[in-house]
Amino acid sequence: MNDGPAYNPCPSQEDVSKKANLVGNVKKSKADQAQIDEETAKLLALKAQLVPQEKKSGKMVLKYPKGTRDIEPHQMVVREKVMGKIIEVFKRHGAESIDTPVFELKEVLTGKYGEDSKLIYDLADQGGEILALRYDLTVPFARYCAMNKIKTIKRYHIGKVYRRDNPAMSRGRFREFYQCDFDIAGQYEGLLPDCECIKIVCEILDSLDVGCYCVKINHRKLLEGLVVGVCGVPAASFNSISSSIDKLDKQQWEEVREEMVKEKQMLPHTADKIGTFVQLKGGRDLVEKLLADEELCANKNAIAGLKDIQTILEFCEVLSISDKVSFDMSLARGLDYYTGVIYEAVLLGGTESTNTTDDTAAENGTGDCNEPSDGEEAAAANVGSIAGGGRYDNLVGMFDSKHQKVPCVGVSIGIERLLSMIERREMEKVGGKMRTVETEVIVASAQKRFHLHRLTLCNELWTAGIKTEFSYKVNPRMLDQLQYAEDNLIPWAVIVGESEIQEGCVTLRNIQTRQEEKIARADMVSVLKQRLQSTLSCSATQ
Amino acid sequence: MNDGPAYNPCPSQEDVSKKANLVGNVKKSKADQAQIDEETAKLLALKAQLVPQEKKSGKMVLKYPKGTRDIEPHQMVVREKVMGKIIEVFKRHGAESIDTPVFELKEVLTGKYGEDSKLIYDLADQGGEILALRYDLTVPFARYCAMNKIKTIKRYHIGKVYRRDNPAMSRGRFREFYQCDFDIAGQYEGLLPDCECIKIVCEILDSLDVGCYCVKINHRKLLEGLVVGVCGVPAASFNSISSSIDKLDKQQWEEVREEMVKEKQMLPHTADKIGTFVQLKGGRDLVEKLLADEELCANKNAIAGLKDIQTILEFCEVLSISDKVSFDMSLARGLDYYTGVIYEAVLLGGTESTNTTDDTAAENGTGDCNEPSDGEEAAAANVGSIAGGGRYDNLVGMFDSKHQKVPCVGVSIGIERLLSMIERREMEKVGGKMRTVETEVIVASAQKRFHLHRLTLCNELWTAGIKTEFSYKVNPRMLDQLQYAEDNLIPWAVIVGESEIQEGCVTLRNIQTRQEEKIARADMVSVLKQRLQSTLSCSATQ
Repeated sequence: MNDGPAYNPCPSQEDVSKKANLVGNVKKSKADQAQIDEETAKLLALKAQLVPQEKKSGKMVLKYPKGTRDIEPHQMVVREKVMGKIIEVFKRHGAESIDTPVFELKEVLTGKYGEDSKLIYDLADQGGEILALRYDLTVPFARYCAMNKIKTIKRYHIGKVYRRDNPAMSRGRFREFYQCDFDIAGQYEGLLPDCECIKIVCEILDSLDVGCYCVKINHRKLLEGLVVGVCGVPAASFNSISSSIDKLDKQQWEEVREEMVKEKQMLPHTADKIGTFVQLKGGRDLVEKLLADEELCANKNAIAGLKDIQTILEFCEVLSISDKVSFDMSLARGLDYYTGVIYEAVLLGGTESTNTTDDTAAENGTGDCNEPSDGEEAAAANVGSIAGGGRYDNLVGMFDSKHQKVPCVGVSIGIERLLSMIERREMEKVGGKMRTVETEVIVASAQKRFHLHRLTLCNELWTAGIKTEFSYKVNPRMLDQLQYAEDNLIPWAVIVGESEIQEGCVTLRNIQTRQEEKIARADMVSVLKQRLQSTLSCSATQ
Repeated sequence: MNDGPAYNPCPSQEDVSKKANLVGNVKKSKADQAQIDEETAKLLALKAQLVPQEKKSGKMVLKYPKGTRDIEPHQMVVREKVMGKIIEVFKRHGAESIDTPVFELKEVLTGKYGEDSKLIYDLADQGGEILALRYDLTVPFARYCAMNKIKTIKRYHIGKVYRRDNPAMSRGRFREFYQCDFDIAGQYEGLLPDCECIKIVCEILDSLDVGCYCVKINHRKLLEGLVVGVCGVPAASFNSISSSIDKLDKQQWEEVREEMVKEKQMLPHTADKIGTFVQLKGGRDLVEKLLADEELCANKNAIAGLKDIQTILEFCEVLSISDKVSFDMSLARGLDYYTGVIYEAVLLGGTESTNTTDDTAAENGTGDCNEPSDGEEAAAANVGSIAGGGRYDNLVGMFDSKHQKVPCVGVSIGIERLLSMIERREMEKVGGKMRTVETEVIVASAQKRFHLHRLTLCNELWTAGIKTEFSYKVNPRMLDQLQYAEDNLIPWAVIVGESEIQEGCVTLRNIQTRQEEKIARADMVSVLKQRLQSTLSCSATQ
């Protein structure tokens, strides 16, 4: 399924079978995981397109746009929890929050994303402004700072961004997805903001309990000093070479070298020299070693970068995250606008994976995560980069008429990939049955046309702030009402019938134990509040 | 500023002055408030476009798209609170939550919005699917139900929607705005879901403490029975005539009559007959009266509509919201897809307003809100419809290949208008200085190069879950650090210097009282937690 027209003829069952066979063959041929994932995603997409026979008579294809999806109630539950935890971390670090429009003047986005600009969604020209959907939250943030002449701010922003990328839904890569960004703008001589961003990534990943991870750090100036200064690559080729180097997290050095030499016309010995550096990973010891390298340190940029890395690593020790942070000279990150420290967090799922995806990082990583795991777990964790960011000192200035700089540093949490993983985990925890409502009480009756009585009780409970539901049928069956409560893990039922009305009471039923007792109508709210307090502390689903 | 190209030459100071004079004249001429608001909005928009002299040299105009805006931190604080309260109500009624993509296949939106379809934002054709931004949350919900074969669901959805409407920012009308929707899908013989929707509107407006309001209700079948059945207007003209009738909340009957007769070629006596009905408002007594009207009740649709209204009003009594609900035969609502009960909530700001805008509803309203208010308050409350919805039994079926019906009823809260009002109120409460961070402690030092000590303390506090900030400067001035705490209403400062290090303690400063005391370093976290508990209960901002 390439990026062709959406209104292609619906796939037939035969198409799907063919594709399924293909996927089987790819798996058997021991192709690399990326290819298997890609083909599996295509198969799923094809299946999703499969429509019943009766719909083929020229009717509308009922679907959501390619690369997007609906978020189901059980996913929303996880989302709310996860975002709540992320916001908690942002607030703990004193961030305020802003929002910006989902589209910007096209002009605002132009020239900020290098090659990726082709992935921007444009709006149609309907006789007004020329608009485009935002590609990230960073450029709108810079526009916001420039427009409002803001020189210092610490803000978070959670919002959807849009990229006409090739979607890989099974790996959590979508065309519409949430980002959770935290940025600090301001002129500060040290690297304290940079280091707080890294700390925040660690706090978030810890609070989400995502297992082992590693935050790789590198420095734009160091990379530039090495590639341009020391190895003599023309400055104009730096971005292109960087993007090759950045692939070292997924490819072997030989492949990257070949790309640089064959596709990008680099001299072999230049490539080799670059190779001796960019394959290095480590901690403060590596920085010391490189600071002693005369050739590298003949370059000012390289020294400046190394000193920054040294400071950051020192701060990380104070912040007790040294074991999570790894200085990795292959980290380049695509975006043009970075100017200083850059970082990227990757999950370290397992070490038994035979393919060359991100989790090879575990082998070279912090040594924190060497327990073997089965193939499935490794695949589950194979979600690549889950957070990234860095320093971008010139972006705000690009929007300022006098090019006045507002130095910034920030981090973006790629929450969709985390969510795919956490959703799976949470679903397993609850045996595939996640509670999607918070209802505490159902008001039920076996009596016909008792709906006004039920409504009256609901009204009392709602007024008291108790989460209450009732059947919308005028004559619902008692069994159905109780079944609904059981299915939705609603702990209590208030039952009303002719006898309860006469006695001025209601029957309170514990859905789980099925025990019933009559309580005075006047005590209903207070008794329920007590019971809910104790139910909550015993059997809460988290 | 019409809807022409955005890249028009920037307005000059002279343009702005001219427009300002025009606004002055419009005000003097005692034009109606709508026109004044409109011209004022245009003036503000023009002012916003005004750029400094130095930027006119072909530089980018730095702004956000027309009809949109950035949400500032103090607005986000209000937004978070308000949305939290709305979600609380939705959850209290047992709703689960979903999300859908911000754009849909254009085809999904086509034919759902009648005349308003021209307001849909299209995405550019970039060689893939033909897409458009969602216009509301209802059509995506119907698409979701049809696509997933969902027959019963009760869900809420909070998301941004997009309309290329003429913005009136000062009145909270934007091109990008949030809607908070609650809908119930399912086949139920009674009107219990309809009535729960109305209850929810009341609970939300009460919880937001927005002052007096009125929920007008009417019925699509009653209106159709009257206009088409009784008065003999061709069915094809019904929507057009409805939209005239709907203007009765803003216009006098004479104006509406003129529109129907002159623009829509209705016979004068037909218009007059419609007029005798659509100006009626009331409660159960009015329903009784109309049920006794032989001419009206010769029409089946009219009877069915009246009986539904009767039932709803009975339910409203049980739910203690009778004083908020008014049967109003002029309510028509624009959208084509309604099939049954419709409702709309309006704020009743004051009764002294001299213009003919929404708050005239107060004069005919529930009698609940007759206190005079000054002109400004009335203007503040003049935010028109703030919630609306109704029953739409055929929309899901439009997406189903067999046109299988899934009856639905729902309500949409137009939160932006409420937010404009609540923001203003909350800002007044705090004297224009709203707290935008939740920071509890600032870690400060007067000593130079003490940043590692400060960072160490921050790390301890963060680990303990205490919201902590510190200056990013390596050598910040003590005064600046304390000033920052005061400005941001941060209650405590932890101060560390050479003497504290030697003594193994920290200085704890109460920012408000300026009292300081030394406490053992080992007790810092526990003492702060105690203090924060008591600070919270005394001086919390709300």
